[in-house]
Amino acid sequence: MYPDSLKDVIEGFRYFPGVGEKTAERLAFSILELDEEKVSSFAEALKTAKNKLHPCKICHNLTDKDTCDICANKLRDKTLLCVVEDPKSVFLFERLGTYNGLYHVLDGLISPMDGVNPEDIGIDKLLTRIKDNHFKEIILAVKPSIEGETTSLYIKKILEGLDLTVSKIASGIPMGADMEYIDAMTLERALNDRKNIE
Amino acid sequence: MYPDSLKDVIEGFRYFPGVGEKTAERLAFSILELDEEKVSSFAEALKTAKNKLHPCKICHNLTDKDTCDICANKLRDKTLLCVVEDPKSVFLFERLGTYNGLYHVLDGLISPMDGVNPEDIGIDKLLTRIKDNHFKEIILAVKPSIEGETTSLYIKKILEGLDLTVSKIASGIPMGADMEYIDAMTLERALNDRKNIE
Repeated sequence: MYPDSLKDVIEGFRYFPGVGEKTAERLAFSILELDEEKVSSFAEALKTAKNKLHPCKICHNLTDKDTCDICANKLRDKTLLCVVEDPKSVFLFERLGTYNGLYHVLDGLISPMDGVNPEDIGIDKLLTRIKDNHFKEIILAVKPSIEGETTSLYIKKILEGLDLTVSKIASGIPMGADMEYIDAMTLERALNDRKNIE
Repeated sequence: MYPDSLKDVIEGFRYFPGVGEKTAERLAFSILELDEEKVSSFAEALKTAKNKLHPCKICHNLTDKDTCDICANKLRDKTLLCVVEDPKSVFLFERLGTYNGLYHVLDGLISPMDGVNPEDIGIDKLLTRIKDNHFKEIILAVKPSIEGETTSLYIKKILEGLDLTVSKIASGIPMGADMEYIDAMTLERALNDRKNIE
């Protein structure tokens, strides 16, 4: 029904997760409105990124250099390591501008139900890195879900006996949220993790 | 904050209307999960589509050929002309599989408020086409809005005196809609355009 060249673009957009048929069509149609130059530079950017982006050899964060900017930065606090589940999380924390330690990026979370075991998410590399360096604190910053909890507990366990603090970012009611829309698990967690007001 | 090559892809996605920063980031990150081959074929598809797609010289529908498949199809009813506001509408009607006439694609709708006048949307070409052919009926199939109504009325007026029927697709309550969510204008239109039950 569509011209072949349009069909190919629609199909291309469908490769992206979360892009359904209608969205792919809408995006494809909109290339008609874009400058030829923009379409062409976008196409090049896609290929370049796919070729150049790779995990940092130290922390597995996404980089187009040999070592990522964070690992290469001599001003970062080398005693603090924040463990996250994907490269995107690194950028979320970096955006805050307040954390000055290092990161370690896992390849997802442990999920026995889906057959994802510790070795699948690179926990061996995390352990090697921790043993080879002098961190004082490991901050577990994965999402609060069954998989996140399992991963945190597993890491906590394998680090037992090492001379360092293992902490976990707080989970609870998000700022500005309406209490009535908070799910029961979050509410329970917020209640259990309550803090004295000082 | 992001590696340069990733930043370029995010920026590229932002060119597309309706793609905000978060969506652009999500889409850009997901190219890491895609096969290199898919990314590359998508990039090529974008450039090819941008180069090859153009308006059909007869109906202004989108095509990568000289004349679009619909205009080139000898089996279509040459006495029926459906006027739509964009190429996408053609595909929406074609998907139904029940309309067998021809189309004419306008370049949007008349909107004096936005400075869009009849000559801006190619109504002169529509008129020329109608005068040069032997249509029996012109079906106006633009969206029911102030702009759509203005455009329909304008076309109806300039076709006065020609020996043909000018019709307009029905507007009213969509099938399956909950009455309580229907806006007042639609409800009023549905009431005014009521039909006897036969």
